[in-house]
Amino acid sequence: MSAYEVIARQIEAKGLNIDKIKDALKAQHIETPSWAYANSGTRFGTFTWPGAASNIYEKIADAAMVHKVTGLAPSIAIHIPWDKVEDYTEIKAYAEDLGISIGAVNPNLFQEQEYRLGSLAHPDADIREQALEHIFDCIEVMKETGSKDLSLWFADGTNYAGQDDFRKRKRYFFEAFEKIYQALPDDKRMLIEYKFFEPSFYHTDLPDWGMAYSFASKLGPKAEVLVDMGHHAQGVNIEHIVSFLLDEGKLGGFHFNNRKYADDDLIVATVNPFELFSVYHELVKAEQSEDEVLQRHAKNIAYMLDQNHNIEGKIGAVIQSVINCQTAYAKALCVDQKTLEQHQQEGNVLAAHQTLMDAYETDLRPILARVRKELGRDPDPIKALKESGYEEKIANERGTADASGGGFA
Amino acid sequence: MSAYEVIARQIEAKGLNIDKIKDALKAQHIETPSWAYANSGTRFGTFTWPGAASNIYEKIADAAMVHKVTGLAPSIAIHIPWDKVEDYTEIKAYAEDLGISIGAVNPNLFQEQEYRLGSLAHPDADIREQALEHIFDCIEVMKETGSKDLSLWFADGTNYAGQDDFRKRKRYFFEAFEKIYQALPDDKRMLIEYKFFEPSFYHTDLPDWGMAYSFASKLGPKAEVLVDMGHHAQGVNIEHIVSFLLDEGKLGGFHFNNRKYADDDLIVATVNPFELFSVYHELVKAEQSEDEVLQRHAKNIAYMLDQNHNIEGKIGAVIQSVINCQTAYAKALCVDQKTLEQHQQEGNVLAAHQTLMDAYETDLRPILARVRKELGRDPDPIKALKESGYEEKIANERGTADASGGGFA
Amino acid sequence: MSAYEVIARQIEAKGLNIDKIKDALKAQHIETPSWAYANSGTRFGTFTWPGAASNIYEKIADAAMVHKVTGLAPSIAIHIPWDKVEDYTEIKAYAEDLGISIGAVNPNLFQEQEYRLGSLAHPDADIREQALEHIFDCIEVMKETGSKDLSLWFADGTNYAGQDDFRKRKRYFFEAFEKIYQALPDDKRMLIEYKFFEPSFYHTDLPDWGMAYSFASKLGPKAEVLVDMGHHAQGVNIEHIVSFLLDEGKLGGFHFNNRKYADDDLIVATVNPFELFSVYHELVKAEQSEDEVLQRHAKNIAYMLDQNHNIEGKIGAVIQSVINCQTAYAKALCVDQKTLEQHQQEGNVLAAHQTLMDAYETDLRPILARVRKELGRDPDPIKALKESGYEEKIANERGTADASGGGFA
Amino acid sequence: MSAYEVIARQIEAKGLNIDKIKDALKAQHIETPSWAYANSGTRFGTFTWPGAASNIYEKIADAAMVHKVTGLAPSIAIHIPWDKVEDYTEIKAYAEDLGISIGAVNPNLFQEQEYRLGSLAHPDADIREQALEHIFDCIEVMKETGSKDLSLWFADGTNYAGQDDFRKRKRYFFEAFEKIYQALPDDKRMLIEYKFFEPSFYHTDLPDWGMAYSFASKLGPKAEVLVDMGHHAQGVNIEHIVSFLLDEGKLGGFHFNNRKYADDDLIVATVNPFELFSVYHELVKAEQSEDEVLQRHAKNIAYMLDQNHNIEGKIGAVIQSVINCQTAYAKALCVDQKTLEQHQQEGNVLAAHQTLMDAYETDLRPILARVRKELGRDPDPIKALKESGYEEKIANERGTADASGGGFA
Repeated sequence: MSAYEVIARQIEAKGLNIDKIKDALKAQHIETPSWAYANSGTRFGTFTWPGAASNIYEKIADAAMVHKVTGLAPSIAIHIPWDKVEDYTEIKAYAEDLGISIGAVNPNLFQEQEYRLGSLAHPDADIREQALEHIFDCIEVMKETGSKDLSLWFADGTNYAGQDDFRKRKRYFFEAFEKIYQALPDDKRMLIEYKFFEPSFYHTDLPDWGMAYSFASKLGPKAEVLVDMGHHAQGVNIEHIVSFLLDEGKLGGFHFNNRKYADDDLIVATVNPFELFSVYHELVKAEQSEDEVLQRHAKNIAYMLDQNHNIEGKIGAVIQSVINCQTAYAKALCVDQKTLEQHQQEGNVLAAHQTLMDAYETDLRPILARVRKELGRDPDPIKALKESGYEEKIANERGTADASGGGFA
Repeated sequence: MSAYEVIARQIEAKGLNIDKIKDALKAQHIETPSWAYANSGTRFGTFTWPGAASNIYEKIADAAMVHKVTGLAPSIAIHIPWDKVEDYTEIKAYAEDLGISIGAVNPNLFQEQEYRLGSLAHPDADIREQALEHIFDCIEVMKETGSKDLSLWFADGTNYAGQDDFRKRKRYFFEAFEKIYQALPDDKRMLIEYKFFEPSFYHTDLPDWGMAYSFASKLGPKAEVLVDMGHHAQGVNIEHIVSFLLDEGKLGGFHFNNRKYADDDLIVATVNPFELFSVYHELVKAEQSEDEVLQRHAKNIAYMLDQNHNIEGKIGAVIQSVINCQTAYAKALCVDQKTLEQHQQEGNVLAAHQTLMDAYETDLRPILARVRKELGRDPDPIKALKESGYEEKIANERGTADASGGGFA
Repeated sequence: MSAYEVIARQIEAKGLNIDKIKDALKAQHIETPSWAYANSGTRFGTFTWPGAASNIYEKIADAAMVHKVTGLAPSIAIHIPWDKVEDYTEIKAYAEDLGISIGAVNPNLFQEQEYRLGSLAHPDADIREQALEHIFDCIEVMKETGSKDLSLWFADGTNYAGQDDFRKRKRYFFEAFEKIYQALPDDKRMLIEYKFFEPSFYHTDLPDWGMAYSFASKLGPKAEVLVDMGHHAQGVNIEHIVSFLLDEGKLGGFHFNNRKYADDDLIVATVNPFELFSVYHELVKAEQSEDEVLQRHAKNIAYMLDQNHNIEGKIGAVIQSVINCQTAYAKALCVDQKTLEQHQQEGNVLAAHQTLMDAYETDLRPILARVRKELGRDPDPIKALKESGYEEKIANERGTADASGGGFA
Repeated sequence: MSAYEVIARQIEAKGLNIDKIKDALKAQHIETPSWAYANSGTRFGTFTWPGAASNIYEKIADAAMVHKVTGLAPSIAIHIPWDKVEDYTEIKAYAEDLGISIGAVNPNLFQEQEYRLGSLAHPDADIREQALEHIFDCIEVMKETGSKDLSLWFADGTNYAGQDDFRKRKRYFFEAFEKIYQALPDDKRMLIEYKFFEPSFYHTDLPDWGMAYSFASKLGPKAEVLVDMGHHAQGVNIEHIVSFLLDEGKLGGFHFNNRKYADDDLIVATVNPFELFSVYHELVKAEQSEDEVLQRHAKNIAYMLDQNHNIEGKIGAVIQSVINCQTAYAKALCVDQKTLEQHQQEGNVLAAHQTLMDAYETDLRPILARVRKELGRDPDPIKALKESGYEEKIANERGTADASGGGFA
């Protein structure tokens, strides 16, 4: 018996259908972010990597390479103005030629000097207007690229008690959100991201899911919440938030990454793989729910990476990230939900926990290899990248940036 | 010039009216909790204090003593069944005789063996029903005692991943909340408290203000959120949450206390006095707002202590707590709001911060002493307690409990 | 090919020897704590479990049952006075009859009323002396029971700024430690535990590994540091501390458990299984080090559980804990150290990380089942417990305590 | 009676001597860092400020201005190579001309591309050597500038589990430290700084005071620990660490700043002024100790700021920081130590705490104004800066940088 068969039997012995699991895995999509392919750093500096992408065409090419070897990364999120071009239909076409599409559009509302004290919540009306105009421009980009999701993250906040008025800023945000909502075509969404801290340190205007949810609820169905794994205080149970937002029909998407303490933007599931599994467990339960509204909602979530590869190669890191999401989803699909529910109903704490852990403990790599093969991919995407010579090729062609600078090059 | 005059002039030099400030201070009310007068401890044990109250009559007497020396603690929150009596009109009368009233009623949904896996979110419908019945009983207690606020805190949660289903538990909570809301007379409120962790460790069903707010929003105007200062993750900006809830008309009340790391239930403002000031700054701004809805809402907040005095005398500690709230409020009343707003509008970060800090730095003890005097109280409540002989009297009459308790059998 | 063979081949393909791995696993010892078999709770109350042990004889019997089904829990830690008896040679003999031995002795320096303000650091010299005498008594218990480790945890600390003098308390501690060190026979150790917070909230006298290490270093080779997994601030990298203490020759032992936020004392590896693996990875590297001093030190560590099973059955939970330690150790033994080191030396960040993760991802349950069989145990200890009827038997014989307890009187 | 007299009497009524307090305040020194006068930012970008210093001469001029208006900032810390010049005796002379001196020298071991995987702990021996050479160069700078303190902060760490070997890196650090120690003249110190996280996210090689202390202890008396207020996990009691290091004779210096969550490098005492007071309380107790070794040690501490003024003017922010340190020290000097000690000895928790708080509550601004006057300074340094026209002058002369970039410009 092969490793595949050993595991497949083990799964089927729990009453699960291995083919359905593989079908679900084949339908999984993880969107990769354009900025993950570029050099990035911390406030202390940026280490440059040979061949790191420096324009949107290179980023698209890299993203296409990730999709080529994994089979589950068919779109790329873009960041404006980092990925600004004259004609967005051109990059749409370029992406399509390479087998992927343009995903979420991310306005940048933090790097201009004008945004020192905020963007949509800036005390000065002119700057609030400038920020809003930039978002309207991004909606145009969405139309041109076919993007469905406007991904809104704000660095707005303050560094000192008394610096500004929380309530006034809240009202500025809501006013602007209403205008954005109006401007957004009906087939598109605005995803409101929250972040606990950084780059504002005393307060962030949208610090937690609750504020994002409050705004999204008042705005209407086109507004949903975006969960970034690194944007929570220590000790927060993220899977619980995910479950709550799912049940409210307000979970729009994810920014996957991992952190040890702050918003480290490390490769997802490298610090705490069990957390990602726990999040996927909630997603799978919703996907398989008998509540059709919930099920439909669960199937409409944007799964996106948001990572910086500060000290490691970019493309291999993104591939590993995609694999880690695949692994977590696969394990969640292998939970024996019926037995779990039964133990929960009986209040059998240990047995319920053990039922969940049984799936987590299972080594599904042979299943994933098979899925890849059936998708026409190499069973080992990391090896496939290495053997493709792609990394050497771009290192040669693109060279290494010599900029250092802190933060984003 | 006396110390009072020096400070009064300083304040008036900022364009503020010292009489209005004193009027506001005279109207301040801090509700003290019956359980603060009893022995309390940690899971490692309980240290018993001479004269600690062991029944509701003693607790009322102690609370009345606190009001007698501070002038701003005219009500006592009760906890059922800890404060259970046959006839609640009797304790209402007893309190009134001593010059105070019965404040919030707190159902206890954690100490019965049945609540091992939860109360309103327990997997077993019978236990959910039992918990609901207890809350209905507490609504009856409210009617008999004249209490306005039903203060709802739940220990519900799980200790292990997979132990129970988040979504199911959420729905159980909402079902129950709807019934409680229906049962609540129109002139009363239900205050939904949230808590980050403990005694459930893996997840708490109501872990943050966002979930409490979501429920309260759907229920209607009689449901509001209760903020306990110790129930947040580290690094959370509590004054921002306070401001947000105020603006949403959903801030029902406070449980004041302080903590260094977890839910330590220490004397308010002893670990971080600036945090309490920052919270009061938001409250004062709302009280003084030109937005009448907001102003009315701000004036209808229940300010309550929720503390355990594990190693110190109870009554002195409660008096100190009340004084600390008075100090924070007084300082917040001394903020030069006009100048602050002007600096904020100009984006003058440092000047805005300095304007706020000017009020915090001011030593208002002479003002508070004068307020007490004008309220017919001793200018020094701590000294007044000591000189009253009350502590010795109750120590003699009530003795010292020999119970220890703690989490270990 | 069986699941065992599939995995064994996979491991051997990395150049590892499956027999050596099994030998290491057969030599693994996890000490279980007497208090894990008794009822325990939080400050909010204690839920009692049918058949929970209420005396040291019952606890020993339960520990023996855990050893019987796991094969790797041959000793039990005791807590004085919780496990106080007239004649300690009697419990030594009783344990030996059941196939286990008495492990670490844990003095209790927190539950007496005298310890309200501390034990060895109490401001009153008489109480410091009382605490010291209790520790001397415990050293006598060690002699009578054959225990090798004196496990020292102190609840000492303060709740309020200014309550006591840090420096004075530090000096009291060192004076006492010197006396304990002198009293300790040469073949025994004192393990100094540290704890970040609780039950003291403002400061703990021994809050972190650094202070425990400083004391242990000055005392000499019989004094070492004890690491409890739940006694750190959020975000602390525990495996790094473990590695540092190992290299210093100062890692005496572990208290294994897990937590989400504070010192939750949950079943080890249930909140974050990867953390336990990471800790074992450091231990394995030290055990296999060419540095003989380090290697010897690594092989002399006391591995102990320290958990409270507040809402779940005790014995099953302890068995699961032991299995979780076994799993983590087994995975750490399967790390391809040579390849890892090579990637590290080359600075190949991703490849090094992937090499480590390869071992973590492997499902070693078939290997563990084989190890148990070869040790003469049932391959499935959880099932073995269930089928033994032991839990029903003790539930019938011992009944269910009706005490509740908790921090509130 | 003037405000000064009111407060002076209040202080003297506690048995304290106002002249001694003023003498201590006049002897206080706070060193300001050259980088605080330059533009700085986060990884998301840098907002440039008109007149921000861009070379060491401008930084010295700004630091001299701060000293001119505060009277207690007579030295400036420098950062190499940010402040690199051909001839260091020249900047020494330039500083002296302006009435200040060169303080600590800070090697930069994080911005070169070579340091991607570390400096003294890099896996490659050549890069370790390069880092060491840079430190030796800095020791030469110390000799030329008359600097006493080598201030060592390392960004070394890893981002991923398995990336490198903790133990190996520890040994590399110790080897290098020994060489640095040898190279250091006898009248100079090396201050070993620790940092909890960032820019390395999975582990930092020197994450806490314990590791810095362990190295410093082994090295000898010229090696001491540097405490940066922002380099701790949440919930850590910093004043306790300060007290411990003082008692060990190993507290070399401070990097003052403040943070809400991570290493925010905000103006000291703006997020939590009570924390800074609590730290100074420990320092004052040591300064006034009857233990002469301790007293001498306490008087030899380097008090330095380490802040980034990302969104506010630089010089005003540094002045405010210096004032905040002065305020905290002044309040600590006003603690009635005798009464405090007496209450501590009696175990009177509340009274001891109230005694400490009495000093914190006191508004000492009139005392500080008097001290400044007696030092020949303007009683209001912020106003003095504004009226000096210095800020406008440098804005005109130096202009505004247009660089944005993340991190340090």
